[in-house]
Amino acid sequence: MSVSLSGVHCAAATPVRPDLSPDLVAFAAHCRALLEDGCDGIALLGTTGEANSFSSVERREILEAALKAGIAADRLLPGTGLANVPETVELTRHALSCGVTTVVMLPPFYYKGASDEGLYAAYARVIEAVGDSRLRVVLYHIPQMTGLPISHDLIDRLRTAFPETVVGIKDSAGKIENMEAMIARFPGFAVLAGADPLLLPLMRMGGAGCITATSNLVARELAFIFRHATDPAREADVAAAQARINAYRDLSNSYVQIPAIKAMIGRRHGDAGWARTRPPLVAVDAAGQADLAARLDEIDTLFPGAMA
Amino acid sequence: MSVSLSGVHCAAATPVRPDLSPDLVAFAAHCRALLEDGCDGIALLGTTGEANSFSSVERREILEAALKAGIAADRLLPGTGLANVPETVELTRHALSCGVTTVVMLPPFYYKGASDEGLYAAYARVIEAVGDSRLRVVLYHIPQMTGLPISHDLIDRLRTAFPETVVGIKDSAGKIENMEAMIARFPGFAVLAGADPLLLPLMRMGGAGCITATSNLVARELAFIFRHATDPAREADVAAAQARINAYRDLSNSYVQIPAIKAMIGRRHGDAGWARTRPPLVAVDAAGQADLAARLDEIDTLFPGAMA
Repeated sequence: MSVSLSGVHCAAATPVRPDLSPDLVAFAAHCRALLEDGCDGIALLGTTGEANSFSSVERREILEAALKAGIAADRLLPGTGLANVPETVELTRHALSCGVTTVVMLPPFYYKGASDEGLYAAYARVIEAVGDSRLRVVLYHIPQMTGLPISHDLIDRLRTAFPETVVGIKDSAGKIENMEAMIARFPGFAVLAGADPLLLPLMRMGGAGCITATSNLVARELAFIFRHATDPAREADVAAAQARINAYRDLSNSYVQIPAIKAMIGRRHGDAGWARTRPPLVAVDAAGQADLAARLDEIDTLFPGAMA
Repeated sequence: MSVSLSGVHCAAATPVRPDLSPDLVAFAAHCRALLEDGCDGIALLGTTGEANSFSSVERREILEAALKAGIAADRLLPGTGLANVPETVELTRHALSCGVTTVVMLPPFYYKGASDEGLYAAYARVIEAVGDSRLRVVLYHIPQMTGLPISHDLIDRLRTAFPETVVGIKDSAGKIENMEAMIARFPGFAVLAGADPLLLPLMRMGGAGCITATSNLVARELAFIFRHATDPAREADVAAAQARINAYRDLSNSYVQIPAIKAMIGRRHGDAGWARTRPPLVAVDAAGQADLAARLDEIDTLFPGAMA
């Protein structure tokens, strides 16, 4: 069963043990907590999930751990895009073999300056080699990491060739104008915001939802915004939810974002081990963790959460 | 036996068959031709070799094919750096298991903005996990692809921690000032130019040699320059060699470089299949191949090669 792309999806972080192997138990518990928060889906193994710092073997283990922990396959949107086509095919096939049909797929991200024709060829080869009509691909536009923007012409070409398969995009570049233009040009194409402050404006212009890092912490508020974005009666509550989200996001961005998110998850779950990262990311140190905890206490006082 | 880093090393291109699988027979023949040209070493599976467009399984096959074809292990410098540490360890261990001890290692290249501390941790974990005193690592500075410059402070820290292991750098950023500063600061550290026009000035300031793409075509001239860079009696011949190299390089750069180099290798070996590339690189089309061939004929007339 494919995922409904509409909704709030968490770019789940991946906890690691002291030897930096994936902590599958803590990960499964975190996934359950995210669903309890109201996440519609879990976009595991994305940028926030440090996917590209894990081997393909580990990535398969992480996905399988979520499934074994009872997370439904149609709630999971793993990242499967690697720099090379054959291993992208393998990871995508693995997901499908587990019943997970929707994947978020980076373009092959080593070569900068790759043309639309080259990126089209890469995506087309993956989709054709996977050869499974159940497959649903969410393209991943994150030029600040890949150096390779997903152009609208590329989307058009992929949708024309694979209309049932290429169903949406995660736009992590943070420009609402780009999302608006994609919504206008591509009816039925799911445009998902990669940045929390953009969920509200995106929903008001017909977007599908979001996949964000801060939803590791404030998915409840994001889900509230998703439900009530266009309800004038809830405007004040929506603004309050957004203020809390923004405070969390601004705090994480005052550090290096992913390590800060992981440290903040550590506070949430009472497990300082969550702060560990894989190189090349560097964990927030003990002083930073204490600072984050103190500032989160302030935020939680100033911007209480948990609206219904 | 470890490679002498001094000399001209070819960033060998990797031919692929019509199904885009590596053409191991054509690759082995090309490696033999490069050694006959006078290459001191073959830096296979680098950027020009489209390494990151191949799976780890294929990369092992490509290295093994060169060895099986009789290329000595101490002439091979494979790239083994991937975005993640565990697979970098595996590929590096595989090379060592084949008797290949010198590798060219990219930093983990997905996360942009990684700090020196994070990059140090990544390299250190790889070297420690490989745990083989034979290992020699050539760092790979190619910020135009990775977004991650190898800073001098990072080199200093790695050399201090692993003085026998971290032995050199391939500098593909094209700035001679950076190479000069590394030569001055790091005695005994092998600075290799990644750009053909810089071999001559680099040798005159105490550099170790080069690893370049154009050496797939004009290694004879590069080897001549390497031998005679500081010989005033050969200055005219050196200039002639450099003119020929530059003409080849300028021609390849008037197209997208790597596909153009592959098409030019196709002309060299009389095998048009060499022009094929893996996505996201796009092969030079038939018209482009004809244009390259015609312009190479002109270059070969204007700048004849084969000095002794």
